[in-house]
Amino acid sequence: MHTGTGSLADVITALAGGVGAARLLRGMIRAVPADQVTAVVNTGDDTELHGLHISPDLDTVAYTLSGRSDEERGWGLAGESWAVMTALEELGGEAWFRLGDRDLATHLLRTGRLRAGATLSEVTAELSAALGLAVRLLPMSDDPVRTRLRLVEGGEVAFQDYFVRLRHEVAVASVHFEGAGSARPGPGVLEALAGADRVVICPSNPILSIGPILALPGVTEALAARRADVVAVSPIVAGSALKGPADRLMGELGLEVSVVGVARAYAAVAGTLVIDEADADLAGQVEDVGTACVVTETVMSTPERATALARVVLGGDR
Amino acid sequence: MHTGTGSLADVITALAGGVGAARLLRGMIRAVPADQVTAVVNTGDDTELHGLHISPDLDTVAYTLSGRSDEERGWGLAGESWAVMTALEELGGEAWFRLGDRDLATHLLRTGRLRAGATLSEVTAELSAALGLAVRLLPMSDDPVRTRLRLVEGGEVAFQDYFVRLRHEVAVASVHFEGAGSARPGPGVLEALAGADRVVICPSNPILSIGPILALPGVTEALAARRADVVAVSPIVAGSALKGPADRLMGELGLEVSVVGVARAYAAVAGTLVIDEADADLAGQVEDVGTACVVTETVMSTPERATALARVVLGGDR
Repeated sequence: MHTGTGSLADVITALAGGVGAARLLRGMIRAVPADQVTAVVNTGDDTELHGLHISPDLDTVAYTLSGRSDEERGWGLAGESWAVMTALEELGGEAWFRLGDRDLATHLLRTGRLRAGATLSEVTAELSAALGLAVRLLPMSDDPVRTRLRLVEGGEVAFQDYFVRLRHEVAVASVHFEGAGSARPGPGVLEALAGADRVVICPSNPILSIGPILALPGVTEALAARRADVVAVSPIVAGSALKGPADRLMGELGLEVSVVGVARAYAAVAGTLVIDEADADLAGQVEDVGTACVVTETVMSTPERATALARVVLGGDR
Repeated sequence: MHTGTGSLADVITALAGGVGAARLLRGMIRAVPADQVTAVVNTGDDTELHGLHISPDLDTVAYTLSGRSDEERGWGLAGESWAVMTALEELGGEAWFRLGDRDLATHLLRTGRLRAGATLSEVTAELSAALGLAVRLLPMSDDPVRTRLRLVEGGEVAFQDYFVRLRHEVAVASVHFEGAGSARPGPGVLEALAGADRVVICPSNPILSIGPILALPGVTEALAARRADVVAVSPIVAGSALKGPADRLMGELGLEVSVVGVARAYAAVAGTLVIDEADADLAGQVEDVGTACVVTETVMSTPERATALARVVLGGDR
């Protein structure tokens, strides 16, 4: 990876989870033309609720990149209303997974098309077009892969049960990606990984968001084959996840909760790790893992900071 | 059937379609205790939209009997909002079948329970309880029965395509009830028909709303066996349907568009037909069919008129 040359990578493929990925992608498309960017998005969090197919990460990325996300709440659509959930609660229905009215329209459209025989890739392309996205969003797979977590207290739960219903406040013994072994990467995924000038692993949860993508047959191999072109951004800053349970989960699963632990988790696939200035003192330890280390501001508290981070990640000015 | 005695039938089972049935049922539960009334409701209009199971007639009856229906619009819930449909249209989704936000909560709850393995009967009982209904609502069947219409211009359409999308403005060559031959009447349906003191065929479309119920194995036979206890209310008044395409459809399918045509359609199952005073001159022709004829005001323009009609139908004051 070359950084600081002032020229940015031309064709970019990003592995993406939810909010952190969406913010970095938004920075990227301020730094390079959006149609040069392909995002391969985790679908291990996908779930079926009330008969509707929900793809939380795909929607977070699409809503964010189309300027529709609610930045304050941190998920869902801006200007959202909640009439359906209110009525559902009145009927005694399960409403712990909050589906806004406008968000539900996405789920209705997706589910209707899936039931009519469309693939998730096809529906995602249609929704992207409807939202006016120039970035190419690819579900990691059209086949169902479902992240499941075995709890220390016993029992196993689906991702959304863990993440939303239990608010990731329970100890996890292990994680597996049901269906990943036999799922095929979605159309265009392996090509996008092979054909990009640079592959970016967004600052998403390494286990729950990037893990399912890496678990698909051929993906880890494709990245390992060009590890020098793969740059990951650490979702851990100063020993903590900025959002979500990445820190807790890494610890529970025996990973060091630091940028060094992230470097180790991605050792096989990422030649470079971008870490925050708060972790500058760990750069040497990252390099000891065998991973080049770039130190910069990684906290995307404003769109401008996200753009600056993207320019570093894509190999331009620092 | 005994009318004018002042005493009303004790245990009542009604065959019901949508709005006309709901209004008569609302009248009934002002005349007799609601828990004496069982409504066997048409599910031939059921459809799947956006992956959701929609049961229009069950919902119309439930919303009306629980005081939640929008009386002015004539369908759906009062105080409804349309945020989901608006967003769906913005995404380019199919929005010709208008699903209100509050109405969607019903469909989400029903669909989620069906996908979890509940039967339509079970879900209907749960929704009825949530809405505080004392009337027992029974879907005519837990098995899928789908009303399909062959058009004179060629081609075949599903019920909602005909009714909503095409606004029943196309000529129909024939109607059939897909699945009816092998569908079983829902749990309790045949028992309710056998055990009632009186069976009422509500003023619904004889072909599209009552037809599917009569097409289920055993239903016509159960009614024919006790034809004298079965009273139908004509949905045709002065040669026209008060609502919907019953008149047009009867004509297209070769039935006389009059109370006489209704008497003939129900000749095998209903011993009595209640007709409007506007059709009093046809009472003799109805009796020529072999059907006793009761003349009264049948237009349920107010709840009081619906109650008065119910009292006649149930054999009380006229």
